[in-house]
Amino acid sequence: MTGSPRKYPNPMESPGQLLELIRTSDGFTRSDLVEITGLARSTVTQRVDLLLAHDLVHEAGEAPSTGGRPPSIIRFNGEAGVVLVADLGATHARFAVTTLDAAVLAESGIDMLISDGPDVVLDMTLKTFETLLQESGVADSRVRGIGIGVPGPINFAVGRPSDPPIMPGWHDYPIGDRFAERFGVPVLVDNDVNIMALGEFWSTDPRPADMIFIKVGTGIGCGLIVDGHLHRGARGAAGDVGHIRIGDSQANCRCGNTGCLEAIAGGGALAAQLSEAGYDTKNSRDVVNLAGTGNAEAVAALREAGRKIGGMLAGVVNLLNPSVVVIGGDVAQAGQALLAGIREAIYRRSTTLNTSELQIRGSELGDRAGIIGAVALVIERILDPSVVDEAIQTNVGAVA
Amino acid sequence: MTGSPRKYPNPMESPGQLLELIRTSDGFTRSDLVEITGLARSTVTQRVDLLLAHDLVHEAGEAPSTGGRPPSIIRFNGEAGVVLVADLGATHARFAVTTLDAAVLAESGIDMLISDGPDVVLDMTLKTFETLLQESGVADSRVRGIGIGVPGPINFAVGRPSDPPIMPGWHDYPIGDRFAERFGVPVLVDNDVNIMALGEFWSTDPRPADMIFIKVGTGIGCGLIVDGHLHRGARGAAGDVGHIRIGDSQANCRCGNTGCLEAIAGGGALAAQLSEAGYDTKNSRDVVNLAGTGNAEAVAALREAGRKIGGMLAGVVNLLNPSVVVIGGDVAQAGQALLAGIREAIYRRSTTLNTSELQIRGSELGDRAGIIGAVALVIERILDPSVVDEAIQTNVGAVA
Repeated sequence: MTGSPRKYPNPMESPGQLLELIRTSDGFTRSDLVEITGLARSTVTQRVDLLLAHDLVHEAGEAPSTGGRPPSIIRFNGEAGVVLVADLGATHARFAVTTLDAAVLAESGIDMLISDGPDVVLDMTLKTFETLLQESGVADSRVRGIGIGVPGPINFAVGRPSDPPIMPGWHDYPIGDRFAERFGVPVLVDNDVNIMALGEFWSTDPRPADMIFIKVGTGIGCGLIVDGHLHRGARGAAGDVGHIRIGDSQANCRCGNTGCLEAIAGGGALAAQLSEAGYDTKNSRDVVNLAGTGNAEAVAALREAGRKIGGMLAGVVNLLNPSVVVIGGDVAQAGQALLAGIREAIYRRSTTLNTSELQIRGSELGDRAGIIGAVALVIERILDPSVVDEAIQTNVGAVA
Repeated sequence: MTGSPRKYPNPMESPGQLLELIRTSDGFTRSDLVEITGLARSTVTQRVDLLLAHDLVHEAGEAPSTGGRPPSIIRFNGEAGVVLVADLGATHARFAVTTLDAAVLAESGIDMLISDGPDVVLDMTLKTFETLLQESGVADSRVRGIGIGVPGPINFAVGRPSDPPIMPGWHDYPIGDRFAERFGVPVLVDNDVNIMALGEFWSTDPRPADMIFIKVGTGIGCGLIVDGHLHRGARGAAGDVGHIRIGDSQANCRCGNTGCLEAIAGGGALAAQLSEAGYDTKNSRDVVNLAGTGNAEAVAALREAGRKIGGMLAGVVNLLNPSVVVIGGDVAQAGQALLAGIREAIYRRSTTLNTSELQIRGSELGDRAGIIGAVALVIERILDPSVVDEAIQTNVGAVA
């Protein structure tokens, strides 16, 4: 026989569950909470007092009175702590400190190379966190959690990269350790495209059950929301669409295969293609800038890349039948050419049933998708009801 | 404010939850249940009595005594009722009557045409159900639920096909109605490949979190288990991989596009290809039979079809990073040629991270995958705790 006695025979007695209920709403009166949970009024009062004492909720405003003193509304206190996040890309990083309801207090961005290895990159990250905390006048003790995105597959349970192709020296590196030591809080590490997908998902209202997020930068990757959850796959490698074969192309890819999507339509491939045509394009940003001047060859290259990416996405749409496809990443910010090519190919190659109610749009968060998603990742973890209960360490339970 | 008071403030007080706990185990003593749920012994006794009175559990055998009378073990009673299932394909159907723990009491199969339309096909289905009940000596009143698979996309919430390409006359047809009228029980309708995937998933021990099931018959379709659940997509059209474009092929497909996987590697395409080469192959079964004789051209055609299907699956594996890929359907039963071609292409084109722990295998249930999956679908619905509570209609709740 397995299983152990539950701390709260009625889960709604858990202060963490009550906090979840309050946090995902606009706030409730104590009477609302009694009605929704079916708990005794004395239990609700006791739990709310506990959450107030821990600063996790506050009494904000008053509900209309039904006679007598108007009841106050209990709302989540987003300023109960802060979250530190870093979105580490191949050549650029963004950092932020935010409240527990994802309001940005300070942020910064810097060019860097992930290939400099974990010591250099993570030391820089730690220093940047310290600077941002100082700038926003927040004490270290108020940090509740840390979220970090990196450009490679991650074993999410342990927060270590698994054989990341463009991150030499990072395989199996315990990324969270130095942050956990310094701040003594949970550190969550995930793939950069996953956190971008999560950021877009969090910011879409209403949240779609199924969403495909595609990042077109130097490389091409994909983040999947399936049935309302980020899908990471058996080894954290889900969304690796950059190496799907396109047509019968023989273009060489850095992965050792030929004809990969990324080798034909990634920002790096486009830069090389335009460079051969005589332009000074060293990377995806140069391609975007050239297209921004209205250069016809650059615009045509982006549109054709969109068609190739859309051809691949048509298969993904047939496979998963999502309601939303979001296009993000550097190259996607180049304007309409890429998006138009993607739309054209999806509508041409997906079945009508799959496209009849499909929305295909650009990212709304742009280059902030990653940091918003990293915040979401941390908040969902540190405010998980069981984690909150553990933190509060109550002994109020069990009325069997 | 939204939300209504809960019937059982402590969910474990619900008889349905207790049944779920018992049903998904090898059985528990009453003391086990007290310990696991944290409920009072009197509550456990009352709920178990209720389940016994409704024949949903029985007392089976005795646990080792710790002194005094040995306690009896409470087990799920699979014979509390029966389930009727039909797996309707394009040209063949299978039917079964099973217990609530999926033991088959009687089954049959018949050649038919789904294109004969709902009246003909569903009348035949109803007659077959009646025959099977008679054969197994089960009274109509013991039928608890009905599951039906059809070869097209289904709006699962209402059990109606949505624009199914090979099912003329079936669009938006209320498939469940005549069965619900006849038997007065829930009727669940789903896509045939989805129920096959569910059957394989249910029969795999331990159940993998992520599984891809591919059916290779006349056409080609796919069922997805993502994070432990069947993924149907926004319009019930997920898994429609038969129309993904392969290479730069210009083969005409019945969908109106060119180069679709199905038009190159489906059983229908193989039959046509071998027929042109002078063989008497009218359908996918003829292809399988020809390969079964050791005919080199048929075996080579199957292997090449496997490579094409594997090329597509390599992309699916990169996208979803599953732990298991299962190959089913008529054509897959032709032996090793198809499977070998599929394995070859997946290992050649998927990233090493995605394939390092990937299992690629043939279906273990063969042509019974659909009926087992349909039973699973029904059982998960009719034994859902809230449905059981409703059926028992207890008024024992709420100790606040």
